[in-house]
Amino acid sequence: MIDNTQPFHETSIRVRFAETDAMGIVHHANYLPYFEVGRVELIRQAGVPYADLEADGYSLAVGEVQLRYLAPAHFDQMLTVRTQVTNVRSRGVTFVYEIADTATGHILVTGFSKLICIDHHGAVRRIPEHWLEAMRAFVAPD
Amino acid sequence: MIDNTQPFHETSIRVRFAETDAMGIVHHANYLPYFEVGRVELIRQAGVPYADLEADGYSLAVGEVQLRYLAPAHFDQMLTVRTQVTNVRSRGVTFVYEIADTATGHILVTGFSKLICIDHHGAVRRIPEHWLEAMRAFVAPD
Amino acid sequence: MIDNTQPFHETSIRVRFAETDAMGIVHHANYLPYFEVGRVELIRQAGVPYADLEADGYSLAVGEVQLRYLAPAHFDQMLTVRTQVTNVRSRGVTFVYEIADTATGHILVTGFSKLICIDHHGAVRRIPEHWLEAMRAFVAPD
Amino acid sequence: MIDNTQPFHETSIRVRFAETDAMGIVHHANYLPYFEVGRVELIRQAGVPYADLEADGYSLAVGEVQLRYLAPAHFDQMLTVRTQVTNVRSRGVTFVYEIADTATGHILVTGFSKLICIDHHGAVRRIPEHWLEAMRAFVAPD
Repeated sequence: MIDNTQPFHETSIRVRFAETDAMGIVHHANYLPYFEVGRVELIRQAGVPYADLEADGYSLAVGEVQLRYLAPAHFDQMLTVRTQVTNVRSRGVTFVYEIADTATGHILVTGFSKLICIDHHGAVRRIPEHWLEAMRAFVAPD
Repeated sequence: MIDNTQPFHETSIRVRFAETDAMGIVHHANYLPYFEVGRVELIRQAGVPYADLEADGYSLAVGEVQLRYLAPAHFDQMLTVRTQVTNVRSRGVTFVYEIADTATGHILVTGFSKLICIDHHGAVRRIPEHWLEAMRAFVAPD
Repeated sequence: MIDNTQPFHETSIRVRFAETDAMGIVHHANYLPYFEVGRVELIRQAGVPYADLEADGYSLAVGEVQLRYLAPAHFDQMLTVRTQVTNVRSRGVTFVYEIADTATGHILVTGFSKLICIDHHGAVRRIPEHWLEAMRAFVAPD
Repeated sequence: MIDNTQPFHETSIRVRFAETDAMGIVHHANYLPYFEVGRVELIRQAGVPYADLEADGYSLAVGEVQLRYLAPAHFDQMLTVRTQVTNVRSRGVTFVYEIADTATGHILVTGFSKLICIDHHGAVRRIPEHWLEAMRAFVAPD
């Protein structure tokens, strides 16, 4: 889902033992925190720290996610999380993700999450313009 | 997504404090364990305990999930998890879910998960026939 | 650590698959949320819901915990969580816990947690008197 | 609890959003996975990867933990985890931990965990000698 011809963000995560389950693999729910790490790091690299958005009275709420599990990850494995923006709208941003085994490059999980801008009362709001602008630097075609 | 005219399974979960995040709501990853509880309880009610499948050398691996977040859940809230089967194939089963506020009936999260039958070497396998038969009792049109 | 001759609270938890780890047992960190469930339910039974304390501007922060792991718990196992208060002071309360296999009564984990009353600025505060009074109904000798 | 005059291991962790709770701080259970990361990294640095111990038929089971929470950690905070060995016995090793705010050096959480060597049937076993030897390089007085 990541378009490698467009800018994307890449970060590394080592699988913790606490993230595995009795099947001996990373529990499928734990890729959502990995996606979240990718998203937070992309936003940091874009120069618009999430903490600043929060300080301005906004939050990004998760409206929808999808994950496809192609192969399992295991304890202590080094993972590469690639994150890209596919869609920037006035009230929301869609992030796509790819989690690969760092050693082999084999893709293990893909997915997306749609985030919606809300204020501290939960009302949907326009994303501040300078923040949208920064996100557009990571946009790939939908 | 749940078809109320067809059989479904219903179970209750009270939100734990550990499941909330700094937005004061249930973290979006934690609905996957709630879905999993719904799935395990449906399977138990169907009379084919997951532990038996495991003892026969099979596992159900999660191949894909999707979640839509309509409204947040909070600490201590009572939730109703409804689970239904929409698709029973020889090598996989799709479950759909609906999580509602128990007090108001308001739907908070919907989603599905596609499970694939694998053996203990990770190879895709046919689901044992008696197990498929039991799942069919919870099938709603896709 | 629970003194059975004194009042205590008892609640049931079924182990979720997401709570297991690659050793095939409940990951040791997950007993802290189980303790938390026991504590929340004791407080509810005492008639002083934690939400009311929060509404009055107080929180209970965890200051210290200890856990001893005697035997492992597994996926789908029914657990009995027993919770008791051993020490009620003006600014803090100590809870003790015992987690047993429901079927056999075998004790799996014991522990305690010391909670401190703070206000919403993080300053240590006296616990409201009616709340202390309710806790005293569950006190066993330290 | 860390003796700075003796060898210890140090690793960095950035707090994930999924690790916070509705009090706006890291949930107290989540320091146990942080301790676990510190322990795994110390073992790696000692040249005796945990995966090798597992391959030889051994596991390290957690027998007891204690944590003291001195100050809260928040989303996105950089933490320094210091890990040291205080006690190496033939059948177990005790690790002590200190989690500090990386920016200020302020200590947030301290604790220890006692690990016991077991085989894959859960029986307590002697730790292989070369493994004990490697651990002794990180020993501080108890």
